Amino acid sequence: MVLLGASKDPKKWGFIILANLIDGGFRGRIYPVNPREEEILGLRVYRSVKDLPETPDLAVIVVPPSSVVSVVKDCANKGIRAGVVITAGFAEIGDGGKRLQREMVQVARSGGMMLMGPNCNGIMNPSNKLYAQMPSIFPPPGPIAIVAQSGTVAISIARRSVVKGFGCSKYISTGNEADLHFEDYLEYLAEDPQTKVILGYVEGFRDGLRFFHTAKEVSKKKPVVLLKAGESPAGARAAISHTASLAGSDAVFEAVCKQAGVIRVGDPDELVNIGVALLHQPLPQGRRVGIVTAGGGWGVLAADACTRLGLEVVSLPDDTLTELDSFLPDWWNRGNPIDLVAGARGDAVVKSVEALLRCAVVDSAILLSLMLALPVRRLRRATSEDEREHWEETMLSAIGDTFGQLNELTERYQKPVIVASELAFADASFEMKMTYALGERNCVCYTLPHQAAMVVANLVRYSEYLRSVS
Amino acid sequence: MVLLGASKDPKKWGFIILANLIDGGFRGRIYPVNPREEEILGLRVYRSVKDLPETPDLAVIVVPPSSVVSVVKDCANKGIRAGVVITAGFAEIGDGGKRLQREMVQVARSGGMMLMGPNCNGIMNPSNKLYAQMPSIFPPPGPIAIVAQSGTVAISIARRSVVKGFGCSKYISTGNEADLHFEDYLEYLAEDPQTKVILGYVEGFRDGLRFFHTAKEVSKKKPVVLLKAGESPAGARAAISHTASLAGSDAVFEAVCKQAGVIRVGDPDELVNIGVALLHQPLPQGRRVGIVTAGGGWGVLAADACTRLGLEVVSLPDDTLTELDSFLPDWWNRGNPIDLVAGARGDAVVKSVEALLRCAVVDSAILLSLMLALPVRRLRRATSEDEREHWEETMLSAIGDTFGQLNELTERYQKPVIVASELAFADASFEMKMTYALGERNCVCYTLPHQAAMVVANLVRYSEYLRSVS
Repeated sequence: MVLLGASKDPKKWGFIILANLIDGGFRGRIYPVNPREEEILGLRVYRSVKDLPETPDLAVIVVPPSSVVSVVKDCANKGIRAGVVITAGFAEIGDGGKRLQREMVQVARSGGMMLMGPNCNGIMNPSNKLYAQMPSIFPPPGPIAIVAQSGTVAISIARRSVVKGFGCSKYISTGNEADLHFEDYLEYLAEDPQTKVILGYVEGFRDGLRFFHTAKEVSKKKPVVLLKAGESPAGARAAISHTASLAGSDAVFEAVCKQAGVIRVGDPDELVNIGVALLHQPLPQGRRVGIVTAGGGWGVLAADACTRLGLEVVSLPDDTLTELDSFLPDWWNRGNPIDLVAGARGDAVVKSVEALLRCAVVDSAILLSLMLALPVRRLRRATSEDEREHWEETMLSAIGDTFGQLNELTERYQKPVIVASELAFADASFEMKMTYALGERNCVCYTLPHQAAMVVANLVRYSEYLRSVS
Repeated sequence: MVLLGASKDPKKWGFIILANLIDGGFRGRIYPVNPREEEILGLRVYRSVKDLPETPDLAVIVVPPSSVVSVVKDCANKGIRAGVVITAGFAEIGDGGKRLQREMVQVARSGGMMLMGPNCNGIMNPSNKLYAQMPSIFPPPGPIAIVAQSGTVAISIARRSVVKGFGCSKYISTGNEADLHFEDYLEYLAEDPQTKVILGYVEGFRDGLRFFHTAKEVSKKKPVVLLKAGESPAGARAAISHTASLAGSDAVFEAVCKQAGVIRVGDPDELVNIGVALLHQPLPQGRRVGIVTAGGGWGVLAADACTRLGLEVVSLPDDTLTELDSFLPDWWNRGNPIDLVAGARGDAVVKSVEALLRCAVVDSAILLSLMLALPVRRLRRATSEDEREHWEETMLSAIGDTFGQLNELTERYQKPVIVASELAFADASFEMKMTYALGERNCVCYTLPHQAAMVVANLVRYSEYLRSVS
């Protein structure tokens, strides 16, 4: 690939992107282009695309806006078929920028070149180790595709996925969508075998009808989860000056999502929370939820959140209660949520979840406490570094085992089990390690009850949609 | 203090609590009581309260439910004036438990003893290093009081405060509230000089009218932020079996909060997010918000969230636009949100915030990007440990400086500045350090735009309430 506008100045985008390409370990050759440099970061610099010894697959363009058109022309003449224009200063800044943008697209198209951007923060293809983007985040290869009409939001989604231990199939900051549009990316990702779920951020569509038809087809193949901004007049105004997007009516977008099977979420946290659940959970056959907690407050909050989201916290039938009686202490609450009171043994956690999954009137299980299932509960303050390491290993392995058992249950009963639990000690660095380790096994531990409810509600919605169109 | 039910078994509560008391470094003497032990964790064990060489201030009780009444009687006879009953198995498990609970209260009252609990996970008073609780979390002394009708939720609030770098004045898990009620704690915390903000979780009140009158008085002195559960029938049922609470009508509770100046929130994240803002931000004089972003998507999401929450994303007057023109590149969007495009200098961040605060039609500012204000943006992958440490120090100090400047502006203009920003690299451990370091300076960096909007909206609501009653 060729980087047009490569720079020696560590503050400039042309340097940062080159550094990311190198640090990312791109498998192909990198050709920096800058008419005034000889060498940057150990790479030979070319004066122009014309001088390159071969025709690269991809051009990444960060030259100033006034030079973009001529640079795109050079690329097209060289036979380059795809370009990412990171440079800003086009349609989003007014009429002059709009004209420049049209000219750029015209030049590219007549030269047989596809363009991504402009005004974006780059693309990634981790399976090729292609990290052609501004922020220094390097998601490993994985099942999540990110496509966003905002570089900041795109990178936030990537960050949230990475710290949860999930990798990324493709990352696309779409920018002004001068040539390739959001719908084009959707179509591409639908066919991309590495992509299992598509997480998107949109401000508006150039062609709402095409979006509808595309999304309707794609959502049958793999889940599409979207965060849409610009619902308010102030937000819509901001969207125009951001990526020249017309946000359109929020009610229309809502209806389109419903009919196209698109899962719409309210913020970037929800986007990733729901996205990662869709990777490994079976879709529930109905709205009925069973909850296991060890800490009543969590159970009350979960029951509230489930009800608010249209889920049904069912009454458990007698045979399920009897099954639970057989291993829970006499004074357990005999209700849903199942509250694992003091006196319950550690294996009661997984057994209770299994009792729920076995139960005919339960479609999904929510588990709100891991602590009880863990063998080691207490790390003294004066503990040595070695002891602490050993404790961490023991805990991580116990947590892994518990999730392993839950995964088996999920598999056997084909019903989702969503875990939201905190650990009863304030060790943020251990929690980080746990979250990451779980993600690498395709597991998630949410922290709050309403997050679990939100995940189940969206699995249900998607499941209902798929059944309605099948 | 005396611990009744101290145990040698590391899995038992009587051990865990004793270990926490010792590890917490309690300033007073600790007397473990257990008729069958001689020594636990290096402390002499007493056979009974009667045998203690002095009368302790506080009794913490973890004996089995059937022994609680006689133990409370012993304590009262010894002249102990306050007890925390951690033991569960009372009103929450049915009629038998209710009788036992009534008997316990009767015995305590007739002996002149106050009781907290039962069925709670403990109390903390960090300024005395009193950590008499089940979970091994040790918040430092600080301005946040936590009072909750659920131990799990209480500890979750504590965890969230601690990892944000904020300490705790008092921690009270109220349990079944057999003797002391939520309202008693509110009254106490209102007068507690260490407490600057009260964060609470409630499932229901014994005496709704008293709660109303108490909360109305307390909220004039310091902010009361509450998370209420049990709004749904399923949640209300769970609340009964949890702490025998009657959740009551949610609409009534909502009206009570409004009239009593209580800030009601939707989940534990919001509780802490809003709570910490109330510690250091001035209250806004109106609903008009100015937004500074460096990443358009964030700005659009913030504008949407503000509008949804009843805030006004105002049009900026000409003189403010002219002020911004003087230091922003020509192609900036000249609107609100102010989008700090490429080309803006680092100091544009603080200058833009100041332009907003100076502006007569802006009551609060939201800042959505720190990155631009930071000098070091790029850490190469191959960086050595030393270089990384140096980089972290430089970054932390730059972040601290920026917040210092923002604090000065907040002080000078007496308008809140709420920051929500992510750093453009996926280094969760650095972010943890940053969050903690900021908290120690009484500063917060939220991560998402809707969190900032939620914080401002609640500052506005509380401010409007206070003005309406003053």
